Amino acid sequence: MAFIDELKFDKDGLIPAISQDADTGEVLMVAWMNREAVENTFAKGLAHYYSRSRKKQWLKGEESGHVQRVLEIRTDCDSDVLLMKIRQDGGACHTGNRSCFYRVRTPDGGVKEDGVKVFDPSQVYKKK
Amino acid sequence: MAFIDELKFDKDGLIPAISQDADTGEVLMVAWMNREAVENTFAKGLAHYYSRSRKKQWLKGEESGHVQRVLEIRTDCDSDVLLMKIRQDGGACHTGNRSCFYRVRTPDGGVKEDGVKVFDPSQVYKKK
Repeated sequence: MAFIDELKFDKDGLIPAISQDADTGEVLMVAWMNREAVENTFAKGLAHYYSRSRKKQWLKGEESGHVQRVLEIRTDCDSDVLLMKIRQDGGACHTGNRSCFYRVRTPDGGVKEDGVKVFDPSQVYKKK
Repeated sequence: MAFIDELKFDKDGLIPAISQDADTGEVLMVAWMNREAVENTFAKGLAHYYSRSRKKQWLKGEESGHVQRVLEIRTDCDSDVLLMKIRQDGGACHTGNRSCFYRVRTPDGGVKEDGVKVFDPSQVYKKK
């Protein structure tokens, strides 16, 4: 059976996709894909997602140039999550951090940031 | 601000949580938490989830004994996904695999399994 036909999209036609650095194992980002985005990700080897706010498909890096080159795609036992091993150009996060998961819970229940800044968003997104 | 108050639960009151092996970086599982499950995960240091099919909170490992000891909890830039660094007793997956992500897409568009079996589900879940 084809991999894509096994996937279970939710009631909105979406499936969450985790991107993980293929070399370091760092989890970089989670975003949603519709079927078209999954197909484009497969066909082009670059991660495509579906924006729930803009209601359209987007190529990760289309504005920033920070594309995600997809080396491997997995799904879980329920076929309702994707896991991609990728190489990330620039940084994954719109904040300029390498990973979107730059906020960590502290022992007192608070939150602190320990991200690695790899670009300046005001420069990368200045065309907006 | 408290970490939990920053989290954005979806319209069903849930947030997806990724569990990642703290030592190897392997992504083991994705499941959903409601606020109560997040609170119990924080308070007890063991991953708790919310079952959308059974409509109740559950302790991961309550039947199998394969608990997830939580060492660190992160959230992403949108505060709508959790990432936990854990130590997994036994295996994460109900199929007996160490990780739920044991199915990988092949170059021809098909799917193959390359999981690492760490327990026999028929033995672990025999009380059912």
